Amino acid sequence: MDRVLSAIDRGRDSALEGLKAFLRIPSVSTHPHHRDDVKDCADFLADEMRRIGLREVETITTTGHPIVYGEWMDAPGQPTVLFYGHYDVQPAEPFELWKSEPFDPTLRGGDLFARGATDDKGQVWLHLKAMEAHLSQTGRLPVNVKWLIEGEEEVTGPNLDAYVETHQEKLAADLILISDTTMFDYDVPSICYGLRGITYIEVLVKGPNEDLHSGGYGGSVTNPLNALSGIIAQLLDENGRITIPGFYDDVVPMTQEERSAYAKLPFDEAGYKSRLGVADLTGETGFTALERVWARPTLDVNGLLGGFTGEGSKTIVPSKGMAKVSMRLVPDQDPNKIAEMFESHVRSLAPPGVTVEFIRHGAGKPFLTPQDHPYIQAAGRALQKGFGKPPVFIREGGSIPVVATFQETLNLPTVLMGFGLPDCNAHAPNEKFNLENFYRGIASAAWFYHELNAGS
Amino acid sequence: MDRVLSAIDRGRDSALEGLKAFLRIPSVSTHPHHRDDVKDCADFLADEMRRIGLREVETITTTGHPIVYGEWMDAPGQPTVLFYGHYDVQPAEPFELWKSEPFDPTLRGGDLFARGATDDKGQVWLHLKAMEAHLSQTGRLPVNVKWLIEGEEEVTGPNLDAYVETHQEKLAADLILISDTTMFDYDVPSICYGLRGITYIEVLVKGPNEDLHSGGYGGSVTNPLNALSGIIAQLLDENGRITIPGFYDDVVPMTQEERSAYAKLPFDEAGYKSRLGVADLTGETGFTALERVWARPTLDVNGLLGGFTGEGSKTIVPSKGMAKVSMRLVPDQDPNKIAEMFESHVRSLAPPGVTVEFIRHGAGKPFLTPQDHPYIQAAGRALQKGFGKPPVFIREGGSIPVVATFQETLNLPTVLMGFGLPDCNAHAPNEKFNLENFYRGIASAAWFYHELNAGS
Repeated sequence: MDRVLSAIDRGRDSALEGLKAFLRIPSVSTHPHHRDDVKDCADFLADEMRRIGLREVETITTTGHPIVYGEWMDAPGQPTVLFYGHYDVQPAEPFELWKSEPFDPTLRGGDLFARGATDDKGQVWLHLKAMEAHLSQTGRLPVNVKWLIEGEEEVTGPNLDAYVETHQEKLAADLILISDTTMFDYDVPSICYGLRGITYIEVLVKGPNEDLHSGGYGGSVTNPLNALSGIIAQLLDENGRITIPGFYDDVVPMTQEERSAYAKLPFDEAGYKSRLGVADLTGETGFTALERVWARPTLDVNGLLGGFTGEGSKTIVPSKGMAKVSMRLVPDQDPNKIAEMFESHVRSLAPPGVTVEFIRHGAGKPFLTPQDHPYIQAAGRALQKGFGKPPVFIREGGSIPVVATFQETLNLPTVLMGFGLPDCNAHAPNEKFNLENFYRGIASAAWFYHELNAGS
Repeated sequence: MDRVLSAIDRGRDSALEGLKAFLRIPSVSTHPHHRDDVKDCADFLADEMRRIGLREVETITTTGHPIVYGEWMDAPGQPTVLFYGHYDVQPAEPFELWKSEPFDPTLRGGDLFARGATDDKGQVWLHLKAMEAHLSQTGRLPVNVKWLIEGEEEVTGPNLDAYVETHQEKLAADLILISDTTMFDYDVPSICYGLRGITYIEVLVKGPNEDLHSGGYGGSVTNPLNALSGIIAQLLDENGRITIPGFYDDVVPMTQEERSAYAKLPFDEAGYKSRLGVADLTGETGFTALERVWARPTLDVNGLLGGFTGEGSKTIVPSKGMAKVSMRLVPDQDPNKIAEMFESHVRSLAPPGVTVEFIRHGAGKPFLTPQDHPYIQAAGRALQKGFGKPPVFIREGGSIPVVATFQETLNLPTVLMGFGLPDCNAHAPNEKFNLENFYRGIASAAWFYHELNAGS
C-alpha cells in the first residue's frame, strides 16, 4: 500500500484536473437539450475507465441515458465489489444564485464548486483514482470489481432497475459499494449502515356526493374534512407512537451499543433547531432526535387537500378530502404488510357517514447491514486509515431507491461510504466538494479495496 | 278583503304576463355586459311600482347597480313594513343545460321556467300584485310600506349595506318583510323565524421554515399537518359537541313546543340521505337532524390545504398547513366573542414545535324572531288563508347577509315568508316557480298586509 498511497499523494493535481474535466460536461439528465452532453459524459467516463485498466467497458444504450459498465475480475478467491454511482447531475437552475459558473469548476477556500461536485461525479471520481493508483503501481486490484454507473439517477429513470433485474448473473457480487451520501460532519468520517424504508398511501375520505352549503347542511352530515382530521389525529398517541395494531411487532430495537454511539455524536441540537426555525424537537417519547430519525418508524402527513382553499371564504361542507400519508419504516418492517395494517386501521377509524379509499404510492424496504458485518468493519478500518481517525457509524432516515433495488434484486450487504458534507449543496446552487475530503476519500477507497482482500 | 281576493283571482293571467316581462330582462348583476339590462330592469320595476300607486319611487344610483325605492305611508297608526327584495339574478351559465331559454319564460307542467323565477323576481312580483289588488280595490293599503329592492344581491355588492347604514331614518319601520326563501315542501306553507349566525376563521399552523425531507427530518420535528389535524380533531368531542370552553353558554335552547313542532314536520330522512349519497346522518347527540341544522351550533372545516397535493407522491414534512373553519351560531351567541374563544382554544391545543395564526373571514349574528311574535303570528294567519292550511314555523341553518345588515342597523323583527321550493333550482339551470304557489303567494301577501292592520 505504500506505493499506492504515495502515487495517490503525487497524483493530487492530476486527480483534481481530471475531476474538473468530468464536471465541465453538463450532464443534466432532466433537460432534453443536454441529451448529447449526457452521452458525451458517459463516453468520457468509459474512456477513463478503460485508460486506468478496467475491462469489458461499455456504454449501454437504454431508452433514456446510457449506463456505463466496466469490470476487473482478475482476483480469484477475493470478494467482488459492485460499485454503483451516477454521472448525471441535477439542473443548475437558478443560475443567478451561483457565485461561479456551475459547469466551470472553481476553487474557493478549500472547496471545489461545480454542479455534480459531490453528487455524484466527485465521489465516482475518487474511486476511479483509487483504482488507478492500485492498477498503475501493482498491476492489479486487491479485489474483483464491477462498475455500474447510471445516467438517470436524478430523474429516477426506470432503466437501471430494469437492467439490474435482467442482468442479475452479470452483476453477481459479494457487496454493493456506494459513495453518494454525506459524512456526519466535516472531519467526522462516517459509514452509513442503515436506511429507513417507506410506505406511502393516499387516503381519500368521501362524504356527500357534492359540496353542500354549510348553513343548510352543517350539523346533519359527517364533514369529510373533520373526519379526515380525526382519523389522522388518532394515528399517533400522546407519546408520539403510531397506534396501528401490530405496527411495532417487527421493529428491531437499537442495540445498547448503537444508542451509546449515537449519544456520543457531536449533534448540535441548538443549531439544528435554529436552522429549521422551530422552538422544539418533538417525536416518540423515550428517544433522542437522532434515534427517532435514524432508527424509529414515523408517520407523517405529506399533503392535505379538501374543500375551498382559495382566498377568502366559502361556506361548504366539502364532499371529500385527501391526505397523503407516509410512514418511514425500520428493519424488519415490511412495507406491504404495514400498508395493509394501515388501511385496515384507517377503515376502523372512519366515522359513520363517510367512506375511505386508498391509493398506494410506492413502498421501499428498510435497509440495515449490521455494524459488525465484516465489510462494514473493513470500511471502518479504511476510513480510519484514510482520515487518520476512527469513523462514526451512522444511519440515515431517508431511503435511497437504488439501495432498495439492489437489496430486493441481488440481496447483498451494502456499504455506504460517503464523503459529501451536510452543507455541500447537492441539488442547490453552489454545490461543492471539500478538497481535503476528496483526497482523503481517494486514500480511503484505496484502503477499502485493500482491507476487503481476504489476505490482508 | 273579498274584493281584493277576487281581483287577485281575476288578475292571474295579467300577473303571469307581468312577471314574464320582468323575467325577460337579463339583469345579471355579475356580468359587465348586462349593465344596461340591470338598469333597464330597475327602471321597469320602478315604473310598475309607480303604476300601482306607490309614491316617492326612485331608482337610486350607486357605484354599482341601482337600488329601487318606493313607499306608501298613508296609514297613520298602522305598522310600517320595510319590504326587501332584489331584482338582479344569477348568471344563467351553463346555458346548454337549460331546457328552455333562461330569459324566455316558459310554462311546463305547473312551473314557470326562467332565471330569476323564484330568486327573487317572482317573489318580488307577487308582493307587487298583492299591493296592486289592495290599491286598485280600496284605494289604500292596510299598512304603511317601504320598498327597498336592490340590484347587487347576487354579487354581495357593498351598496345596499352602505345605503341602509346612511338612511336609517328614511328606512325606519316596524318590521322587515322578505320573500326570498323556500317553503319546507310543496303544499307546506312556511314561515322562517330563525337563521343561524356564523363566524369564519382561517387557521394557519406553521412549523419548520421550509418543507423538509420526510426521510431526513421525519421524527425530529412536529409535522404541521399532523398538528393541524390533531387540533381540528379536538374541537369536537365524541358526542359531536364543540369543546371550546364557554361555547354553549349563550345558546338559547329550543323550547319544548319548537321541538314538538319540528318532530311533526314531514322530514323525509331516507330521501335526504339518498339525495346526498350518505349512509348516515350524524352530529350532536340528543338532537334530530333538523334540530341540529336549524337550532344548534356547528363547527365545520370548509377547506384544508398543506404540503404536496399533486398527483403521485412527494416525501416532505411540510412547513405549514391551513384550515378554513366556520362555526354556525344560534341565538344568543355573539360571533366576535365566539371568534375570541375559538382562537384562544386553538392556541391552547397547538403542540410544541408549531405556531398558530388566524385570519378572520367575517361574522354574522344569528337571528330569531320568536314564533309567538305578533308579526310572525300575523304571517301565519295570512298563509293559513292564502294556502287554506296552517303554515309550519321553520328555521334555516344558513345566514342571509341582508337580514344581519337589517338586524344590526335597524334592529327590527323580520318575517321571512318564502314561496320557493327546495328543488326550485335557484342558482342552477332550469330555475322555476311553481305557478300555484306564485298565485297562493299573492293572496298570502295580500292577507299579510290585512292581518298586520291593527284593527283587523
